[in-house]
Amino acid sequence: MADVPARTEIGVTTGPIRGSVKVHVGAHRVAMREILLEPSSGEPPLRVYDTSGPYTDPAATIDIMAGLPALRRNWIVARGDVEPYAGRQIRPEDNGQSGPDRSGGVPQFPGAARAPLRARAGMNVSQMHYARRGIITPEMEYVAVRENMGREAAREALVRDGQDFGAAIPDHVTPEFVRQEVARGRAIIPSNINHPESEPMAIGRNFLVKINANIGNSAIASNVASEVDKMVWSIRWGADTVMDLSTGRNIHDTREWIIRNSPVPIGTVPIYQALEKVGGVAEDLTWDIFRDTLVEQAEQGVDYFTIHAGVRLPYIPLTARRVTGIVSRGGSIMAKWCLAHHQESFLYERFEEICEIMKAYDIAFSLGDGLRPGSIADANDEAQFAELYTLGELTHKAWAHDIQVMIEGPGHVPMHKIKENMDKQLEVCGEAPFYTLGPLTTDIAPGYDHITSGIGAAMIGWYGTAMLCYVTPKEHLGLPDRDDVKVGVVTYKLAAHAADLAKGHPAARLRDDALSRARFDFRWRDQFNLSLDPDTAEQYHDQTLPAEGAKTAHFCSMCGPKFCSMKITQEVRDFAGRQNQGIEGFIATGPTAAETAAASKAAAIKGMAEMAQKYRDGGDLYMPAAG
Amino acid sequence: MADVPARTEIGVTTGPIRGSVKVHVGAHRVAMREILLEPSSGEPPLRVYDTSGPYTDPAATIDIMAGLPALRRNWIVARGDVEPYAGRQIRPEDNGQSGPDRSGGVPQFPGAARAPLRARAGMNVSQMHYARRGIITPEMEYVAVRENMGREAAREALVRDGQDFGAAIPDHVTPEFVRQEVARGRAIIPSNINHPESEPMAIGRNFLVKINANIGNSAIASNVASEVDKMVWSIRWGADTVMDLSTGRNIHDTREWIIRNSPVPIGTVPIYQALEKVGGVAEDLTWDIFRDTLVEQAEQGVDYFTIHAGVRLPYIPLTARRVTGIVSRGGSIMAKWCLAHHQESFLYERFEEICEIMKAYDIAFSLGDGLRPGSIADANDEAQFAELYTLGELTHKAWAHDIQVMIEGPGHVPMHKIKENMDKQLEVCGEAPFYTLGPLTTDIAPGYDHITSGIGAAMIGWYGTAMLCYVTPKEHLGLPDRDDVKVGVVTYKLAAHAADLAKGHPAARLRDDALSRARFDFRWRDQFNLSLDPDTAEQYHDQTLPAEGAKTAHFCSMCGPKFCSMKITQEVRDFAGRQNQGIEGFIATGPTAAETAAASKAAAIKGMAEMAQKYRDGGDLYMPAAG
Repeated sequence: MADVPARTEIGVTTGPIRGSVKVHVGAHRVAMREILLEPSSGEPPLRVYDTSGPYTDPAATIDIMAGLPALRRNWIVARGDVEPYAGRQIRPEDNGQSGPDRSGGVPQFPGAARAPLRARAGMNVSQMHYARRGIITPEMEYVAVRENMGREAAREALVRDGQDFGAAIPDHVTPEFVRQEVARGRAIIPSNINHPESEPMAIGRNFLVKINANIGNSAIASNVASEVDKMVWSIRWGADTVMDLSTGRNIHDTREWIIRNSPVPIGTVPIYQALEKVGGVAEDLTWDIFRDTLVEQAEQGVDYFTIHAGVRLPYIPLTARRVTGIVSRGGSIMAKWCLAHHQESFLYERFEEICEIMKAYDIAFSLGDGLRPGSIADANDEAQFAELYTLGELTHKAWAHDIQVMIEGPGHVPMHKIKENMDKQLEVCGEAPFYTLGPLTTDIAPGYDHITSGIGAAMIGWYGTAMLCYVTPKEHLGLPDRDDVKVGVVTYKLAAHAADLAKGHPAARLRDDALSRARFDFRWRDQFNLSLDPDTAEQYHDQTLPAEGAKTAHFCSMCGPKFCSMKITQEVRDFAGRQNQGIEGFIATGPTAAETAAASKAAAIKGMAEMAQKYRDGGDLYMPAAG
Repeated sequence: MADVPARTEIGVTTGPIRGSVKVHVGAHRVAMREILLEPSSGEPPLRVYDTSGPYTDPAATIDIMAGLPALRRNWIVARGDVEPYAGRQIRPEDNGQSGPDRSGGVPQFPGAARAPLRARAGMNVSQMHYARRGIITPEMEYVAVRENMGREAAREALVRDGQDFGAAIPDHVTPEFVRQEVARGRAIIPSNINHPESEPMAIGRNFLVKINANIGNSAIASNVASEVDKMVWSIRWGADTVMDLSTGRNIHDTREWIIRNSPVPIGTVPIYQALEKVGGVAEDLTWDIFRDTLVEQAEQGVDYFTIHAGVRLPYIPLTARRVTGIVSRGGSIMAKWCLAHHQESFLYERFEEICEIMKAYDIAFSLGDGLRPGSIADANDEAQFAELYTLGELTHKAWAHDIQVMIEGPGHVPMHKIKENMDKQLEVCGEAPFYTLGPLTTDIAPGYDHITSGIGAAMIGWYGTAMLCYVTPKEHLGLPDRDDVKVGVVTYKLAAHAADLAKGHPAARLRDDALSRARFDFRWRDQFNLSLDPDTAEQYHDQTLPAEGAKTAHFCSMCGPKFCSMKITQEVRDFAGRQNQGIEGFIATGPTAAETAAASKAAAIKGMAEMAQKYRDGGDLYMPAAG
């Protein structure tokens, strides 16, 4: 095992996002970000949702070697239903050190070891269990404060405007509303009792649309320092949860570094590590090895597990004639196991036993879509929906144990087939949160799949998906680096926000309006700071107009100082003002705007009717080709 | 005036797109691109639509100083309805040389001067006029061949699959179909008789969705070499038309360089140049100056004019309380003129006179949306739709002259309000092609507005918009450079393609399927070459796996060689094969897939019903909060 790295070897980005300050709200000191605006705006700071944890708080001491403070520890212990225990022994194969090559190890996390917690015998420590018993937990209170960000201001400023396809987004989020949503299964608060460092957050159709960023070692690249850095980097720009999809070696230790330093829920796909433990031979997987891996990860604090329990033996033939077969790694592992043993998946068969583990730690299911389409050609096919129905069945099995559940969705889907995915998911999964990867709306743009999928993500978010799994520009091509992670996160953040706007979230438009006012007033710094990525916005501006004065200039590089539409609009307003009368009064001689528009509309419709008549009469408009 | 630049000063990118060859099809030698696939694929080359002109043809001689060959010249002359004439004299103010500073001029285009053509007295040379008289022009024949690209192959391979919202996309495009669409006003073929260098293309709801790229000098940046280069660069990656939005000085000469070298239609906003001619003072604009500018640009060969004739005096007060007022440059100029003179817009008043010019050269109207919303807050407001109704009225006025028309649309629109734009446009504009800028689906991501708008563009393209005006990452921040132009074009190309797929275009999926097969087969080079941007795709791949061998490796950097879902799927197929029976036969003991899925679905729905029952009965699921 390598030495513990020097502090500089695991450098992460800290400090506030430019133009913003960290604030803490309420008894639970819920972390939020306030964007400060120029005094000339006459506007208060704009409060925005903040996923970045203590890393953007100048008052916080960051020590990657020690991990974050255990924010939730006292809440968990105070409930009196958990017990510390010795925990499972870490073995070499947990880090993939079973093969002949043992070099390249990752150092053990050096922070103080804590004995893992689990539910006391007969207890269930899931947020859903509390919710169903009518208990409002501190986690639910925290979520309520967090989600309310901005709604007080919105209450006076905005009329609700959106199409929500049956969602029920409240004007104001109360702790009781959070409890009800969790009780009903429409929202989850992923919160393993062994990840007390996490700041509670909710994933559900009636909350803000969330995004997930994937990071992780692979067998051929990456190291622990860059993965911790990517985690911190991705939450800085807005990732609500992070999945550690490490494969290859060092899985256990890499995960420990990530979880101990993560203020957001961490998800994994446990079958990846189980496969490593059997040397990569899917047929050699057993329930015992998988079970042991679940416990290993539960004790570390993983908040949700992707489990591909819907890949059932009879569904596998449905994929044989697909253009891209099975593209989910977890799905293909299980398919191979099922075929090799000619036996039903142990994930399906042992589902009840898996539930017993989940509820002892409050781990949420992310029921994996192992048969998701990997190409436009395979979208919405029988294999995909057969699996979805089974995920619906399993949702209700999990709910019988009061276990939190979300459902994973595709993938590659052309626009006209996206809504069917949402509709079917709602139909069979009882409104359990949907968590989709994109979907990509075309296959022809490798290198731009953050965009092909951002289109689908925004749409399915609008239709009701609760969390969007990001896709980076490297999708299908390579491992994302730091820049790719940022582009992926910002792209998905804007897609999620576009979805919130379209759903009619009561406060979403506050930020759009503040930014548009800044744009109209030529408050360039406010425009940068209000954007999802202030650094890039300012850098792009400065590429054309680098002078400091251009930051306060009342023009931009598109039109230059003489010829500016925004400036002219202001002059239009001023002009009307100089006449000492409202602009309407100045113009109101002759027909009103409404009369004018109505006359135009009537003329247009008359024109269309005449043309249609010509068409019916076989006029020369559509005469057959001469000669 | 500066010297004529050396050839190297106006360098453009030439040569084939990697992995592709240029082919010419049919009597008119319609240019297309064929993507060659590896022999192991057993697949023929994939033919794709090609906007790049001779620049990607190794057999063509490119001489920017001479311009492109006049492909259409003989067709135009052969119709016997045009005459050459002396044309208008070029004046210093055409290049903005009326002010005190005359430095920084652009050299005159050095190619051989041609006398401009115009319609002979009493003649109308528009494609719509021919179409309505039953004449199929060579331009229509060219378009038919061009649009059919791939449909022969599709006829056998694909079942139509899409939702077209009332479009009528044929299985096969005939010249007669093109004629009918043009006659009916549902499509336009922008083709000024003074731009014989252009390769005919159609913009219409029943053809492939097109994209436009904007380039142009501004008062404070750019030069002619970079603008010509950007034009060639943007068509290389797929721009179907290019708008020259130059402002400031050198407008006339810059445009001449661009048109003489452009194989795609060129659009402009003539009011920009007219404003320069009056020193940037909107109030000083006159009909005579505007008219003179139209003739000047008509003689140069501009194929479509954006004319903001729908900004009527009574509508201006509707914008006064908007968050971002009037953001269209043309719209704000006309608003200022109307207010200053307290008079109806001369563009509206003189519309018939404008029509006389348009039909003498076959210039298409792009009726501008001067009152488009510049922010989410202003979307779909009264000002916007009042103007749209007037554009509907003007569409029918233009059609009475047999003039080709398209309609410009917004702008900034949240997702749930996009469809209303399309529906209203169809309602009042008689299915004239809609041509939208995005729309941007949120205001909060400057630096990423190619993506915020790519989402809206894909959606409105699906709903029926015929051409999408690109937005680059620099939107709202600065002038796009070469890299930004490429990112903007590729983003819009993928959005347009996503729209074609969703509309159910009969051949669109051929490319997706070819790429997905290549992906599944690990034909990395085919995957790069089939993508919209082969260079970026290969570069991203090589960042993780630079070795030459990785281009043929049957794995990728995401999973590594041991653990690959695509590989496992192949093994699943092989496994079934080794059993000497179909994979279905191997598994078919016990319930079928359909039976299994149906059982799961029934269980899920039963679970939901039970939970709903619990809810109605006031069970503990939703008990009120304790305490």
